[in-house]
Amino acid sequence: MSQTTFLRQEIDQFDKPYRTHLINSLTGFKSVALVGTQDAQGKTNLSPFSQIIHVGANPPLLGILFRPHTVPRHTLENIEATRAFTVNHIREEFVAQAHQTSARWDVSEFEACHLTPEYTAQVAAPYVREAHISIGLQWVERADIAANGTILIIGEMMEIRLPSHALHPDGFVDLEAAGTLTCSNLDAYHKTEKIARYSYAKPGEPLREL
Amino acid sequence: MSQTTFLRQEIDQFDKPYRTHLINSLTGFKSVALVGTQDAQGKTNLSPFSQIIHVGANPPLLGILFRPHTVPRHTLENIEATRAFTVNHIREEFVAQAHQTSARWDVSEFEACHLTPEYTAQVAAPYVREAHISIGLQWVERADIAANGTILIIGEMMEIRLPSHALHPDGFVDLEAAGTLTCSNLDAYHKTEKIARYSYAKPGEPLREL
Repeated sequence: MSQTTFLRQEIDQFDKPYRTHLINSLTGFKSVALVGTQDAQGKTNLSPFSQIIHVGANPPLLGILFRPHTVPRHTLENIEATRAFTVNHIREEFVAQAHQTSARWDVSEFEACHLTPEYTAQVAAPYVREAHISIGLQWVERADIAANGTILIIGEMMEIRLPSHALHPDGFVDLEAAGTLTCSNLDAYHKTEKIARYSYAKPGEPLREL
Repeated sequence: MSQTTFLRQEIDQFDKPYRTHLINSLTGFKSVALVGTQDAQGKTNLSPFSQIIHVGANPPLLGILFRPHTVPRHTLENIEATRAFTVNHIREEFVAQAHQTSARWDVSEFEACHLTPEYTAQVAAPYVREAHISIGLQWVERADIAANGTILIIGEMMEIRLPSHALHPDGFVDLEAAGTLTCSNLDAYHKTEKIARYSYAKPGEPLREL
């Protein structure tokens, strides 16, 4: 197998689109979800994010990394104004609409991309009705990354909505059964096929498949 | 479709294993890679991580979130001692060995799990020879998350190694062609099948498939 190696000096010399694709690809397959917010006047916003990270289970925390605040970032502004946001997993049935929400629309992305806002009493932000797994969150912390000005927003899960058939008796969620997709780079969407779910690893004990 | 909703009070009352599975599943499919490090004496360590996030392309930055530093965390200690680490994508051919590295071994996980350390002049940490995509990184920043004591370590990419056939002319890396897997929860591994790669979204313009 022919292998390519890039050293740091070469990476720095690539043109911007090439470097963006390359580096965004290299973190591997990513979570991808539509983040729903609204401003203080109730105008809704929807945007796809792949920089989503599990932060902790107790309390239940999730983080989203935002690019530097130099251009309008409605999602971040709305979260800072209302302290609320939703994370909605993307399914194949609306993947093209989900990708289209990344364009710079004047109207709400819900309207522009034909997705349906839905509200509950728990969170002051719109859910995406078309999503099967969605989480309502409340802002708890902001961490600024000095290295490049990105901003990590941590949210606390206030509400979880998921298909009953995807929930296993031990709390594991079968994301495939729920139709959740993964992405690579900023533009490729993939479905998955499970290879194995393994038991907790212990020295000298063979793994079991769960 | 029958839907299950959990409110925050219910989440807090789940027993620990159930809550851990549920919350770890809900961030969606994740990057999963073996992180290679060594201590000041050159003793190697290898551990699987799924809390990996793209931080930026210029400079090329990647972040890994570590759990609170209350139990021995050799990977974090090694990174803080040597300022170097490698990120190695997991393929189906060694997925069980990769999962086994998460056990508490006394000897190096390379030895215990039959994986091969490999060194380059660029980074003071071992690569995994069996991986097809691997990145050598240098520590640049640590961000402490107050909400739960987790630690985000940011690394700068010094070297990138990938199969030539997986690299597209525009910098996009075909992770499927490289055999890279994704994971869900902390124990399930999945291969992927591409649905579509879409053009940059613009208002009023239909998406093209790339």
